[in-house]
Amino acid sequence: MSVTDYLRQNRQKHLDELFDFVRIPSVSAKSEHRDDTRRAAEWLADRMREAGLTAVELIATTGHPIVLGEWRGAPAGAPTFVVYGHYDVQPAEPLEEWKSEPFEPTVRDGRLYARGSVDDKGQLYLHLKAVQAHLETNGTLPVNVVFVVEGEEEVGSPNLERFLEANAERLRCDAVMISDTTMFAPGLPSITIGLRGMAYMEVRVQGPAVDLHSGAYGGAVVNPANALARIVAQLHDADGRITIPGFYDRVAALTDAERAQIAGLPFTEEGLREEVGAPALGGEKGFGALERIWARPTLDVNGLLSGYTGEGAKTVLPSKAMAKVSMRLVPDQDHREVERIFTDFVQSLAPAGVTVTVEALHGGAAWYAQPEGPIFDAASRALARAFGKEPVFIREGGSIPIVEVFRKQFGAPAVLIGFGLPGENAHAPNEWMSIDNYQRGAEAIALMYEELA
Amino acid sequence: MSVTDYLRQNRQKHLDELFDFVRIPSVSAKSEHRDDTRRAAEWLADRMREAGLTAVELIATTGHPIVLGEWRGAPAGAPTFVVYGHYDVQPAEPLEEWKSEPFEPTVRDGRLYARGSVDDKGQLYLHLKAVQAHLETNGTLPVNVVFVVEGEEEVGSPNLERFLEANAERLRCDAVMISDTTMFAPGLPSITIGLRGMAYMEVRVQGPAVDLHSGAYGGAVVNPANALARIVAQLHDADGRITIPGFYDRVAALTDAERAQIAGLPFTEEGLREEVGAPALGGEKGFGALERIWARPTLDVNGLLSGYTGEGAKTVLPSKAMAKVSMRLVPDQDHREVERIFTDFVQSLAPAGVTVTVEALHGGAAWYAQPEGPIFDAASRALARAFGKEPVFIREGGSIPIVEVFRKQFGAPAVLIGFGLPGENAHAPNEWMSIDNYQRGAEAIALMYEELA
Repeated sequence: MSVTDYLRQNRQKHLDELFDFVRIPSVSAKSEHRDDTRRAAEWLADRMREAGLTAVELIATTGHPIVLGEWRGAPAGAPTFVVYGHYDVQPAEPLEEWKSEPFEPTVRDGRLYARGSVDDKGQLYLHLKAVQAHLETNGTLPVNVVFVVEGEEEVGSPNLERFLEANAERLRCDAVMISDTTMFAPGLPSITIGLRGMAYMEVRVQGPAVDLHSGAYGGAVVNPANALARIVAQLHDADGRITIPGFYDRVAALTDAERAQIAGLPFTEEGLREEVGAPALGGEKGFGALERIWARPTLDVNGLLSGYTGEGAKTVLPSKAMAKVSMRLVPDQDHREVERIFTDFVQSLAPAGVTVTVEALHGGAAWYAQPEGPIFDAASRALARAFGKEPVFIREGGSIPIVEVFRKQFGAPAVLIGFGLPGENAHAPNEWMSIDNYQRGAEAIALMYEELA
Repeated sequence: MSVTDYLRQNRQKHLDELFDFVRIPSVSAKSEHRDDTRRAAEWLADRMREAGLTAVELIATTGHPIVLGEWRGAPAGAPTFVVYGHYDVQPAEPLEEWKSEPFEPTVRDGRLYARGSVDDKGQLYLHLKAVQAHLETNGTLPVNVVFVVEGEEEVGSPNLERFLEANAERLRCDAVMISDTTMFAPGLPSITIGLRGMAYMEVRVQGPAVDLHSGAYGGAVVNPANALARIVAQLHDADGRITIPGFYDRVAALTDAERAQIAGLPFTEEGLREEVGAPALGGEKGFGALERIWARPTLDVNGLLSGYTGEGAKTVLPSKAMAKVSMRLVPDQDHREVERIFTDFVQSLAPAGVTVTVEALHGGAAWYAQPEGPIFDAASRALARAFGKEPVFIREGGSIPIVEVFRKQFGAPAVLIGFGLPGENAHAPNEWMSIDNYQRGAEAIALMYEELA
């Protein structure tokens, strides 16, 4: 029996198992769900054992356990894949906005509605089913596989990096498979090959020692909120380019091939505009919207705070003003260098009369994979077979910190194959996963192992 | 016996009475002090009767009562003065910052420390003692006097305007005396002849329909916080002048005499800088700090809010951003016109990709009194006699809405003679009033009536 036949024959069974998985409210952020979260880990460990994995265990952390399981029966010299995923889910709140119970799987229009359905229980579990399909039909796999499934992804993976370091020997691998992203469009299999990096800064402007009466002092005292607005305004020019000296020095230009590839995707700017509900799109001149999101660095204010922000009028001349400003970075920008030149430039814009402090809160490198080599080739062929369409290579404008953690720890390429879909409400009420994608995703992963043989 | 002798002989008695007054925690903002606030009104009414006023009554409002009392024994054709003040006080919190109990009068270094001591119980009560001095020594006054003392000044005088309208006949007057301001410097009697007006605006910028992920959308969506910063930054030019077209058209230029008068005051910019604790002063080029605060219009951000303002990093591309922006106005600007040209200009600065809404929250005219005529002359001579120094004419950068209310209702000039002092902590812990000013203030007001005779 082929792996595809196996997966199709067991379609309902595998769906029922996923129903059981999403019924467990493994909300990592909430202490009231601590036992549920552990129960999800134990449930998953049991399913790993049933699937034929060995050395299955729960690794205790200061938070929720990491579930490990492996199959190491591949021929000598065969590569080792880590499959990373997470069994924890976002809180379901606001509950009143759910059309069906968040932890009671409900099928409507070919979609499985449940918290965690697509993020990440469904996308993770299909990997286990793909491995199981090989072990049950062929008794073997062409590669060694190690599942690393954490229960703290939705709370920032506070224990994962330390765990990977401490277990570097056991987890050494040639590739990391992650399905925790989306396809570019329904029916269009997609491999994510780029993520942007980040430099997240906080700018604090201090003027007078205390809040003043804007009547008694306004006109003679430099207002830190006005000063902050002037600083922020000077970070872009009229063409939407970032004005920090040296900011673009290391930015890899989009090649003609890359631009053509992006232009070939089924995408309209009007569609994006409607999706976000803004009167118009904007951004850096000379680039399309997808290019700007995926391959151009950006600078966005994430937060502004100063003075009185309640209802009505209060005549305060604020003593301080704060902006959170994050820059999304692209290859080959160095986030530490960006933090430094941002700080220097903002300081240079500070007017007399205020003191400006700049702090780097969080940063990380961009990531870009050349989609070349046998693993990407195998994944592409498998996706084409499972979905009847050649996959597209896409990027994401955001960051997935764990990709960088694996790269740093193992130097292993990450293969990001998403089976989610736009509009899936991953962190919102009425999260759903396409049942067809769950099935085809398992088939695609199983076929990828076949292609690797 | 002269009124001065009377006031000096009764100095301790009058101080003890003020002690009793400030012991009543008439905090108008707090419902738990509702009975205390009424008690203060009744206490004051009793003292009015003892002082020789007639028709003393508490006028009920939807909030705290207004205390009325009058003396109408002046010769036919004599002018009528309204003495306005308030018996309510600010909340005392934060209590832990008080060096002595806020409602237990304590004398240190010639200062009476208590909530309400200077704002406004002491400054109000000295007016009653001045009137009483005349009635007890001469049995008469050269003018009719009506005391209008409200209990809601610290909560925005919500009932006063309606009360004045409804009692316009009874309250018709030739001047309004208010002591609720400060002297320019210790020992330097001061008459306040100018207040700035105000146009308080709220600017709201809406971009996408909901908050977006700054990674997934940053670069293609116009960020409303960045857009707001650009708008605010464009409201001033490099010389600190406001760029709104037409903004300065009606601004009355400072005359050479006015500039000379301001320059003659005992003031240093370095002293102001130290007072506010900023690294430097700032503002419109070509004017000194006092000129900028008193006689030049200004534009200050009073509040800024957008996106995530908590601790740490959150990668939100905010859907909206808000700024509260108030302009202080000077003669002869029209606040309604300023509201309109501000709105038009801000709208003209809105970039594509966002929707900008501008709302006028609160506005009022500037006020400027030519310090001429018999009332100002009498007040000046009286202050010189009581303090041994010629009074100065000063302005305030802020607004006192009640002045405008009286002007509108009665067309009466306001005579603002403050007996507070810089640093008196009127709305802060450790509020105090100079006991010497309390005494000399009563003498000055009594002498003013003498001068008017």
